[in-house]
Amino acid sequence: MIYLDYNATTPMCDEARAAMLPYLSRHFGNPSSIHAAGREARAAIDDARDKIARIVRAKPHEIIFTGGGTESCNLAVLGLTRCRSSRKHLISCKTEHHAVLHAIEYLEKREGFTVTWLNVSENGIVDLDQLADSIRDDTALVSIMSANNETGVIQPMPEISRICRERGVLLHSDMVQSFGKLPTVIPSPSTALRAGSVEETRRETLKTTQRDPSTPKTSGAQDERSFLSLADAASFGAHKFYGPKGVGFVYLRSGLSIQPIMFGGAHENERRPGTENVAAIAGMAAAAELVLRDRGVEQDRQSHLRDQLWQEIAASVPEARQNGESAPRLANTLNVSFLGIDSQMLLIALDLKGVCASSGSACIVGSVVASHVLLAMGLSMERARSAVRFSLGKRTAPEEIAAAGQAISEIAERFSKQKAETYAVA
Amino acid sequence: MIYLDYNATTPMCDEARAAMLPYLSRHFGNPSSIHAAGREARAAIDDARDKIARIVRAKPHEIIFTGGGTESCNLAVLGLTRCRSSRKHLISCKTEHHAVLHAIEYLEKREGFTVTWLNVSENGIVDLDQLADSIRDDTALVSIMSANNETGVIQPMPEISRICRERGVLLHSDMVQSFGKLPTVIPSPSTALRAGSVEETRRETLKTTQRDPSTPKTSGAQDERSFLSLADAASFGAHKFYGPKGVGFVYLRSGLSIQPIMFGGAHENERRPGTENVAAIAGMAAAAELVLRDRGVEQDRQSHLRDQLWQEIAASVPEARQNGESAPRLANTLNVSFLGIDSQMLLIALDLKGVCASSGSACIVGSVVASHVLLAMGLSMERARSAVRFSLGKRTAPEEIAAAGQAISEIAERFSKQKAETYAVA
Repeated sequence: MIYLDYNATTPMCDEARAAMLPYLSRHFGNPSSIHAAGREARAAIDDARDKIARIVRAKPHEIIFTGGGTESCNLAVLGLTRCRSSRKHLISCKTEHHAVLHAIEYLEKREGFTVTWLNVSENGIVDLDQLADSIRDDTALVSIMSANNETGVIQPMPEISRICRERGVLLHSDMVQSFGKLPTVIPSPSTALRAGSVEETRRETLKTTQRDPSTPKTSGAQDERSFLSLADAASFGAHKFYGPKGVGFVYLRSGLSIQPIMFGGAHENERRPGTENVAAIAGMAAAAELVLRDRGVEQDRQSHLRDQLWQEIAASVPEARQNGESAPRLANTLNVSFLGIDSQMLLIALDLKGVCASSGSACIVGSVVASHVLLAMGLSMERARSAVRFSLGKRTAPEEIAAAGQAISEIAERFSKQKAETYAVA
Repeated sequence: MIYLDYNATTPMCDEARAAMLPYLSRHFGNPSSIHAAGREARAAIDDARDKIARIVRAKPHEIIFTGGGTESCNLAVLGLTRCRSSRKHLISCKTEHHAVLHAIEYLEKREGFTVTWLNVSENGIVDLDQLADSIRDDTALVSIMSANNETGVIQPMPEISRICRERGVLLHSDMVQSFGKLPTVIPSPSTALRAGSVEETRRETLKTTQRDPSTPKTSGAQDERSFLSLADAASFGAHKFYGPKGVGFVYLRSGLSIQPIMFGGAHENERRPGTENVAAIAGMAAAAELVLRDRGVEQDRQSHLRDQLWQEIAASVPEARQNGESAPRLANTLNVSFLGIDSQMLLIALDLKGVCASSGSACIVGSVVASHVLLAMGLSMERARSAVRFSLGKRTAPEEIAAAGQAISEIAERFSKQKAETYAVA
């Protein structure tokens, strides 16, 4: 099996599993219990929170553990908005993941909020001028993802952040797909940059996100800041970065209040109730450490393999078009439209050859609708319906890329031939 | 360590861990992916859903997987109520777990609902006449737990169910604590019972719930019905029945609609979004099968040990009072007030002797407030503040009960002596 669907989910790393196992057996206590068994579990959670806070340069109490990326996005979007419900306006973008999109649509339909949906360019980048123009006195929240799960397109977060801060509006960012791929520590803006125009900042942002990740800036912590802290809140899910499913976290800037979306015990500082999933939390922390340790080297390696896969596809399938090509993108993601070929047919044929890929988000169960992301980017229905996402990961080997390229080429050729024959018969 | 806090959480059974492990390593696919890796994960979830549905006599689509007992209760209470928001009245009881209590209080404070809180007797049983009298034309939901987590007191669910059905009102039941302890299949009501008075039905209910669980009725399935189906919706959390933390399920009667509390993908028939926690769901199904297989024998055994522990306490600690004593109770639960002794001090002393017990629900993190359950039962503040819950489980051995009894006796004696000395000095 050649697995090229790492953006859907990742195989858990050994380190995460090893961190989980004691809490799936001998250390089974409820972290809320005051006795020895409980304290042992509590220590594991405290330790995981400290670890995660340290690597993302946040404070431990800024980390709220949840049941996964979708819950994280919902807690952040619904929770921050409901806390500020005198403000009745929201800003987001139609290329967001459904976890954000549908949460905002719910607020729009059921709780009386109005929403400004920002346009994106053909490359999927939000319109920064429109963002600045859309902010109103009653804007409760802006929600823009750091990197898109389908195309890998990276949004200019530093500039989005600057606009929101200047206008005093809260910013949430769905960082589910970018964690472990983008740096968690970025350079502080220079004085020039801080005084600069939107366009200058945008160029700086592109430079920042494209900066060779294997050579971190060494000029000292005072010149760096947490990537997470560009937003007031950010959402994460562990199974996208080699951690377990069913666990995630929200970064919530210190001092901000949030309305829980569930009620019960006082867990997570009264922000998320329910007995903590101790094993999964420990596993997530281990996975987070590992993925960030290897990030620089891995992103270089995957970027190279990704480009190689594209070159093989481009050379053998003339109908192939890369989506989001000229935007800064996650190193591991390749979204290709095979014009004239239905993506579902292509995916099934690939599956038969042992290649696992995807059309858009895996979270639309069994759905054959065209990607809402590509349509929002203004691509044609044909182009959207023929799009396939290949997403690489740390176990992706060069031989697999070569084999996948070969399989894609063979299938596309067969489909073209079948089509030509069908036309000839007709 | 002598673990007597099974109502807080249980050690995971080997069968659950074995069911999980493949999905924590080789079989890591996202169940929403259409390729081989995804289908493998999807099959595991389908299989788990079928298993659980079979053992609780429900239909597979009546089972909604969630992130745990608290989420289950919240989804049921918030989701059913918000779906029927033209009805603005709710009925529940102050002895409910905080997951239900706080969800209802949120609806009361923030979404314009009024709530009738039912009285309970000194034994913790809800007032059935008051229930019948409280139902209004605009009652959206009644929520009453099957068995209390702190006292083990079992509510007369068949009669509560009958009242709600007769009046056309939806019933949710928090069954988190009773799963694996009460039968999931119960006798159908007899003709006499169906025509009988509330008092007759109540007596019949007590008989039913006290019926020797090791000798199931053998008169054929046509005389039995699912215990879950007494309610229209019921909530469960796996870590209370030797399954993993971070996973649970809602039983929702076929045909009922529910408003999700989170938004995103179309998972769980559009009722609960987010990538399914495949390993945990597989583990939960394995644990459910096992706990119900052993239920009859285990509940007999634990009930015997529980009574033995009480006899040892009663014989050596004259200040001990059993709470909920004359109500039908879960076989494993013993709630004792040690009059004149602060329960936190007692628990710390027990912990030092290696005995893990609890004061009330573990879900009130580090809290030293008196149990809301005992106060709602009309017990004095002194009695509530001196209450300790001992809850047994399948690994509890007779020697442990003897040792725990001895430890309790020694500690109580020491505390009495210290108190006497303090008074003598004063």
